[in-house]
Amino acid sequence: MFVTFEGGEGVGKSTQIRRLASALEAQGHAVRITREPGGSAGAEAVRHVILSGAAESYGVRMEALLFAAARSDHVETVIRPALESGCMVLCDRFMDSSRVYQGITGNLPEALIDGLERLAINGLRPDITIILDMPAASGLARARARASEAADMASAVPDRFEKEELETHEKRREAFLDIAARDPARCRVVDASRSVDAIAHDVLATVEARIAERQAERRDA
Amino acid sequence: MFVTFEGGEGVGKSTQIRRLASALEAQGHAVRITREPGGSAGAEAVRHVILSGAAESYGVRMEALLFAAARSDHVETVIRPALESGCMVLCDRFMDSSRVYQGITGNLPEALIDGLERLAINGLRPDITIILDMPAASGLARARARASEAADMASAVPDRFEKEELETHEKRREAFLDIAARDPARCRVVDASRSVDAIAHDVLATVEARIAERQAERRDA
Repeated sequence: MFVTFEGGEGVGKSTQIRRLASALEAQGHAVRITREPGGSAGAEAVRHVILSGAAESYGVRMEALLFAAARSDHVETVIRPALESGCMVLCDRFMDSSRVYQGITGNLPEALIDGLERLAINGLRPDITIILDMPAASGLARARARASEAADMASAVPDRFEKEELETHEKRREAFLDIAARDPARCRVVDASRSVDAIAHDVLATVEARIAERQAERRDA
Repeated sequence: MFVTFEGGEGVGKSTQIRRLASALEAQGHAVRITREPGGSAGAEAVRHVILSGAAESYGVRMEALLFAAARSDHVETVIRPALESGCMVLCDRFMDSSRVYQGITGNLPEALIDGLERLAINGLRPDITIILDMPAASGLARARARASEAADMASAVPDRFEKEELETHEKRREAFLDIAARDPARCRVVDASRSVDAIAHDVLATVEARIAERQAERRDA
C-alpha cells in the first residue's frame, strides 16, 4: 500500500503523516515514512543541485527535469523495495506536486509533465493520495508563521508580493482539487481546516477502507 | 550558426572541433566551443551528480533525466546567449548522443527520449550536425589506447567484455547513421577513418556550404 500526501504549504501534511504512521503501526503494519524532494541518496544529491543554485538561476524546465530525476531514484531505490518487503509507504509529496508546482504554476505543458511523470514513476502509482485541503489564505498564514518562527522575516514581506503569493496559493489549491476530481479512484480530499484529531480520524478511515478493498480484491482473485 | 559534433568514442570529435574553430576564426568568425555533459554551471553541478554515484548505481531513467536537465541549463545559459551575441557555437555531443546512448543502447522508449529532447532544447535545434563515422572496432581501439595511456588498464579487460563492448559500439554507430538518414537536412556523415587533414577539409567545406545557404536564404527573405 503506497499512500501519498499532497496539498499546499501549511496544510499539515507532516503532522498527519506521523499520526497515520503511529495508528497503522499500532495495528501491526510495518510503515516507512519518506518525502520529496529527496528521500534517497541519489535524490538528495539532486536536491543539493536544486538548492545550491540561487533559486531563480535555474529555469522551470531544468527544475522539472531535476525533480523527475530525483523521483526516479527515490522510486527505484526506496519506495519500490520498501513496498516489496511488505511495508506500507507514506510519502510527503509525490507526482501531483510536480503537476501543480511545475505544470500549473510553472506553466509547463501538460504533455511534458505527463511524459516526465511516466519516466519517473515507471509504473508505480500511489494506491491512495490524500489531498489536505484548506483555504489558501489559512495555509499561507500557517506557512508564514512557521517561516517567521524560523527566521523572523514575515514583517519584511511587501504588500504586492503577499497578494501575488496568495493568488499563486489559490491557483495551486484549485489545481490539487482538479487532480482529485479527475482521478477519484485514487484521490481523497480531506478538509484540513479542522482539528488535527478530526483530520487524523478521516485520514485513517480512508486508508483502512482502501486496505479492506484490497483484501476483498485479493480474496476474489 | 549552431554546429554539433556526434559519433562514438575515439572518432576524433575534439580534434576536429579545434581544427574547425581555428579555420572559422581565421575567416573572422567569433567562435564558442562547448561540450556535453557539462558546459554551464548548472550542467556541471548535474554532471557531478552523475559522476559522484558509482556509475552503476543510478538507473538509465535517472541518467536520461539528469542529462536532459544539464542540457536545458547548457542551452539557456550558454548556447542561446552565445548565438544571440553573434558567435558560432561548436558543441561536442548534444541531443543525438542522448538518442543513441540512453535511447538505443539504454533501451528507453523513443517517445520518452523525444519528450525529454523537446523539454531540454526548447526549440534550439542544431543548424548542422557533423557525424564522424568510422568502423566500431577502429574507434574502440583508439578510445582504448587513450584510456590505456591514462590508466594502463587495457590489458586487464577480459575477452567477453571486449566482445560485448564491440557489439555495443556497433549498435551505436548504426544508430548515429540512422539519425543521419532520417534527418538529412541537418546531418552530414563524414568518414573519420581518414587523415585528420582530410576530415578537417570535409568538415570545413560542409559548414561553409551551410553558411552560404543561410546567407542566400537571408537575401531571399
